[in-house]
Amino acid sequence: MGKKETIAIDMDNVLADVSSQFLRYYGEATGIYLRKDELIGKGESEAFPDAKLAGRFVFQPGFFRSVPIMEGSRDVVRQLNERYEVFIVSAAMEFPNSFVEKYDWLAEHFPFISWQQIVFCGSKRIIKADYLIDDYPKNLDFFEGEKLLFTAPHNQLLTGYKRLNNWQEVSDLLLG
Amino acid sequence: MGKKETIAIDMDNVLADVSSQFLRYYGEATGIYLRKDELIGKGESEAFPDAKLAGRFVFQPGFFRSVPIMEGSRDVVRQLNERYEVFIVSAAMEFPNSFVEKYDWLAEHFPFISWQQIVFCGSKRIIKADYLIDDYPKNLDFFEGEKLLFTAPHNQLLTGYKRLNNWQEVSDLLLG
Repeated sequence: MGKKETIAIDMDNVLADVSSQFLRYYGEATGIYLRKDELIGKGESEAFPDAKLAGRFVFQPGFFRSVPIMEGSRDVVRQLNERYEVFIVSAAMEFPNSFVEKYDWLAEHFPFISWQQIVFCGSKRIIKADYLIDDYPKNLDFFEGEKLLFTAPHNQLLTGYKRLNNWQEVSDLLLG
Repeated sequence: MGKKETIAIDMDNVLADVSSQFLRYYGEATGIYLRKDELIGKGESEAFPDAKLAGRFVFQPGFFRSVPIMEGSRDVVRQLNERYEVFIVSAAMEFPNSFVEKYDWLAEHFPFISWQQIVFCGSKRIIKADYLIDDYPKNLDFFEGEKLLFTAPHNQLLTGYKRLNNWQEVSDLLLG
């Protein structure tokens, strides 16, 4: 038996449904509830009529702690965690207030992921793994392993990437 | 011109003089001030008569925020930062209370290091770089680039590693 392959999994928009959280926060702040398909092809906060307001949500205490979990992700990550060496890799360094919230969020929703498997970074250029599942081309482009673009509204119009639209498709590819 | 080589630099006992901080905290708590050479060859907290007490210091608010900077490190890292792609990589995930303290400490002592260059992880097995400067064999052993053991009391009796005893020696090797 060779050693296990390594998978690096992004948090925001991959494990954590940040788009839905933006919609909820914006709705609660303004009374304007957009639909997810209205975010397609636009930068995360830029999709909103008041982009400046939306851009501030990520600095509000509780934003990352209360984000909904992405549908189907828990069971698939649990199975991946048995077959692969799994790392959760989040570009959390941009929002230092999010460190503890993200750590606690992972402990709640993915209790089988140990602290040894968590990475908070700024750039992902320093990450080495066999696979990277991420919603941002800027993270995938420098990666030397297999790049897997997880579909999010902001990247939905991009072409040229191997795309995973949901966690069922992750399962089909990596556990099938 | 090729692209810059990458250096990953550990924080504790490399940039941050954690051994001195242990000595200080232990002295203030017990009145017993050990010398650094009394720590040689022993685990960080195990070197102290009351190892359990010493082991709790890292959970005290302020421990990582007030740690002294390692002599000579600032100037050498500043120069490395011009010639190489530098990442500061700390196994902070073991002590979630330390995230913000370590982030703020870096901002104070190494203001030329941007958030894009900081990585807080559990295991360093996922780190890819040309060089890793670290005081722990467990971090170096899985690393695929050049492993550089930075001397700390706990590793001083180990053999079999390329050793850097201080920041002058880092400068000689990587900037000479």
